[in-house]
Amino acid sequence: MSPAVEPFVVAVAGGSGSGKSTFTQELTRRFPPGSFSVVLLDDYYRSRPDIGHHNIDTANFDHPDALEFELLRTHLAELKAGRAVDCPVYDFTTHSRTSRTHRVEPAPIILVDGVLLLSHPALAESFDLRIFVEASADMRLIRRLERDRTERGRPVESTLKQYLTSVRAMHEAFVEPARATAHLIIHNDRPGQAADAIRRLVEFALRLPGV
Amino acid sequence: MSPAVEPFVVAVAGGSGSGKSTFTQELTRRFPPGSFSVVLLDDYYRSRPDIGHHNIDTANFDHPDALEFELLRTHLAELKAGRAVDCPVYDFTTHSRTSRTHRVEPAPIILVDGVLLLSHPALAESFDLRIFVEASADMRLIRRLERDRTERGRPVESTLKQYLTSVRAMHEAFVEPARATAHLIIHNDRPGQAADAIRRLVEFALRLPGV
Repeated sequence: MSPAVEPFVVAVAGGSGSGKSTFTQELTRRFPPGSFSVVLLDDYYRSRPDIGHHNIDTANFDHPDALEFELLRTHLAELKAGRAVDCPVYDFTTHSRTSRTHRVEPAPIILVDGVLLLSHPALAESFDLRIFVEASADMRLIRRLERDRTERGRPVESTLKQYLTSVRAMHEAFVEPARATAHLIIHNDRPGQAADAIRRLVEFALRLPGV
Repeated sequence: MSPAVEPFVVAVAGGSGSGKSTFTQELTRRFPPGSFSVVLLDDYYRSRPDIGHHNIDTANFDHPDALEFELLRTHLAELKAGRAVDCPVYDFTTHSRTSRTHRVEPAPIILVDGVLLLSHPALAESFDLRIFVEASADMRLIRRLERDRTERGRPVESTLKQYLTSVRAMHEAFVEPARATAHLIIHNDRPGQAADAIRRLVEFALRLPGV
């Protein structure tokens, strides 16, 4: 990219199971490689080696204290200044940050994907556009059950226990209130609904005079 | 415009006092004349000569039956086909459609502004992009009180009576449920919030590769 063009930083926030990651993937898929760089808030989890397999259902991964927002904010400022950053690599099996990093290069648009992106006021100011992907509570739960079962092999009881112990309360305390600070909200209950919205948004943008 | 380019039809829906008309004006103001044509659902009110000054507080203008959706749908199809239409002119002082019309020409983007645009399923299908401008109930009421007072010289009691008799119930029955059918939702409680969202959306669109 031209060094004169400052990257445009977009937050894609929304509750667990809202479909925000599918939305992010759909957006990047539509354009040539190099158009976007993607940063995941999940990479910024703090190490929690105290969490083991026995207490995973009750550990709270959904409170802002679980994440190192300041490091992400520093990294976004670097990307905005046109410099590459080395993002942490988190190991979800040990609940610890590894010694490895992965490099993210600046790009015309930096997409940042994460549940709690808008819940940290100083970080929220880093974004040029704040998108909140929303879905009904039951649809979010259904998607979470499905993900935990197929990707992580977790029994339904374990997912529900964690949901009732922390996920639901944290959603109401930190995720939902941040909704009103978003510039755009995209409702995503039906499969492909957010992707359809992106398709239409791009088509709209193409018609804007001078664009 | 080139006859080969089919106009892109955008609904700007949302409750009374959500700020959708300000949003529409802000969008058209940012671009050269001729980029957009604007159609107002309010022009499609059915004549209600039975309503006089004495019963204005209790007349229900917020039920879908008050509007001629089919005529609007026909007009949008004409605009989409590249042909100009003659929109009705409604007289709010007599609650009747006048014998006059006003011409709307096709343009690259047709913006349609109206509270109940998404509440009529066949009409809702006419739109290439459905935007819902939302605001908190108290903010909508404050804006409505202000508009009725300054633009229409109505006393507060009259506005509140109408609000409690029909506006609030119709909002919950017809406006709010249509929210989930929108492709984009824009929250607009603060002055200029929707305009800021549009500015950021356009800036985002400008960065999209190939745009």
